Amino acid sequence: MQDSETEISTLGEFGLIDELTKDFKIKNKSTQYGVGDDCAVLDYSHDPKLRTLVTTDVLLEGIHFDLTYTPLKHLGYKAAVVNFSDVYAMNGKPEQITVSLGISKRFTVEHINELYAGILLACNEYGVDLVGGDTSASVTGLIISITCIGKGEEGKIVYRNGARDTDLICVSGDLGAAYMGLQLLEREREAGAGQRDFQPDFAGKEYILERQLKPEARRDVIEELHRLDIQPTAMMDVSDGLSSELLHICKDSNVGCRVYEERIPIDYQTAIMAEELNMNLVTCAMNGGEDYELLFTVPLALHEKAAQMKTAKIIGRITKPELGAYMIDREGNDELPIKAQGWNAFAAR
Amino acid sequence: MQDSETEISTLGEFGLIDELTKDFKIKNKSTQYGVGDDCAVLDYSHDPKLRTLVTTDVLLEGIHFDLTYTPLKHLGYKAAVVNFSDVYAMNGKPEQITVSLGISKRFTVEHINELYAGILLACNEYGVDLVGGDTSASVTGLIISITCIGKGEEGKIVYRNGARDTDLICVSGDLGAAYMGLQLLEREREAGAGQRDFQPDFAGKEYILERQLKPEARRDVIEELHRLDIQPTAMMDVSDGLSSELLHICKDSNVGCRVYEERIPIDYQTAIMAEELNMNLVTCAMNGGEDYELLFTVPLALHEKAAQMKTAKIIGRITKPELGAYMIDREGNDELPIKAQGWNAFAAR
Repeated sequence: MQDSETEISTLGEFGLIDELTKDFKIKNKSTQYGVGDDCAVLDYSHDPKLRTLVTTDVLLEGIHFDLTYTPLKHLGYKAAVVNFSDVYAMNGKPEQITVSLGISKRFTVEHINELYAGILLACNEYGVDLVGGDTSASVTGLIISITCIGKGEEGKIVYRNGARDTDLICVSGDLGAAYMGLQLLEREREAGAGQRDFQPDFAGKEYILERQLKPEARRDVIEELHRLDIQPTAMMDVSDGLSSELLHICKDSNVGCRVYEERIPIDYQTAIMAEELNMNLVTCAMNGGEDYELLFTVPLALHEKAAQMKTAKIIGRITKPELGAYMIDREGNDELPIKAQGWNAFAAR
Repeated sequence: MQDSETEISTLGEFGLIDELTKDFKIKNKSTQYGVGDDCAVLDYSHDPKLRTLVTTDVLLEGIHFDLTYTPLKHLGYKAAVVNFSDVYAMNGKPEQITVSLGISKRFTVEHINELYAGILLACNEYGVDLVGGDTSASVTGLIISITCIGKGEEGKIVYRNGARDTDLICVSGDLGAAYMGLQLLEREREAGAGQRDFQPDFAGKEYILERQLKPEARRDVIEELHRLDIQPTAMMDVSDGLSSELLHICKDSNVGCRVYEERIPIDYQTAIMAEELNMNLVTCAMNGGEDYELLFTVPLALHEKAAQMKTAKIIGRITKPELGAYMIDREGNDELPIKAQGWNAFAAR
């Protein structure tokens, strides 16, 4: 530990919480009372159509992140944003988070301040209030558990189970970039192992790195849907990979789907990286995961509006369930079955 | 691994979640949609005075629990109940929980089923719905992060900051038992270390064991307060020890306090165990922690009602802040300063 570093035990749990939360300001009228009591107190009662949305994500060192190449500030930002993404995926608006941490002995107050600087940035960017949490020592590694609370409107909330035959399938942004960013980081980590002055080569690959290290939640997509008065029939965010999420929607809605390979949105940096690593580009885009894009379906009658969207594009259509889930290749007729090869935290153990 | 044990990877994350959540039934009208989408959807809008309460707790193996003497079912029960306790401590009612787990390789599906059996029991006992969570592998050890959502009523919610000079201080149940239970478990674990057929001696100590392993949240105290029409001015649950919680109320309410040593409620099993271990009984009761009793203050005008309570007793009074926080000993005049020696997860590292 260096001179400028502070052991967490010198502050204790309550001192640490005071230090970490002092820069957070309350922004939402639904937040009546935040950090500092047995519970936060929220007001989700001022409109009878108001609904409360709740989602939670846990991020574990060694499983979900590697601190050798993940800056703590980015990690804090990402840990918050992936929760916001789940609220947008219901056509909602995130308003509060609680942050629970398990912190091993190798972390100092300065480290945790960095992590919180990222959480603060995300909260300010997305207009979300920090309202509580729990902070404890851990035996090993950093543990981050965030719960996000948001608002939705009865009748406007979008589940996974509403897709219907002939609906259009849309996805925002592009896919596979976060996964390629992870491959790049892993490659440079291995190349630099044991070398003191190793400089990783990230030139021209800034986009895929940012997609991995500092993803955004697609609030802009939700805003565009509202502006164009498009009410999706089903929606979810792409965290485990497009294939996996398509199958969730098909299963929950009891439908099938066809997705056009040529319409899968892929950034050129993603394509270049896949080529460098000799990986199949479409497989990466379909199964990479951590894209935090929004996958949604809209009625065929809204085709014209959906085609106008700047933040999303049409990639396929919903079918009757007996037709299964397939991708149509660039030649237009061969059909490849869509399989969930998304990230499985338990398979890798 | 034995024949009857199932590796978690054979089910995968979604299979595991289906298996774990299948026995949970929705009980509250505020729960509109539970497990299975990006978010749970709750309705806290049907009464303009309704408020949403949110609390969260993280329990880490090796820090908060030791599986050599903690049955997984008890652990699941306790992990849920400690969150309910925080909602009752606001004069609220818990209605939903989310459960996030990190699970290392040594745990099987059967282990996690046991943990969930305890969570299910607690949910059924307290009328709470499981509405979501996140389940992941961990590098080492078991990680449990639970968030609880509940309801309160505007004007009836009790914070820590409302205690006023001359208010009576009350506490429910008895104190120090959970801490003595922990000491007993630790003693027997050490006595049995390395002995294959060691039988721990718990005869006559069932109460302190239960207080440690399977604590309850004091819903009955909240019900009695309602029945007697007592609105506390400040309240919190005793998780870190009475001394620590008294100081929280004093600081947040800007008051002092006097507590009578002879009124601190202590069970005889707690007293016997302290004697056996040659520990100071009052110190254990004041600082032991994990009691999950309710500490609250009521206006002096309600003295008669407060004195009638079956679930709680008067242990002292609130004073002006300049009088500080002191305990009055059995002789009635010496005053011992109250200090927070409660459990600090960071000090022990």
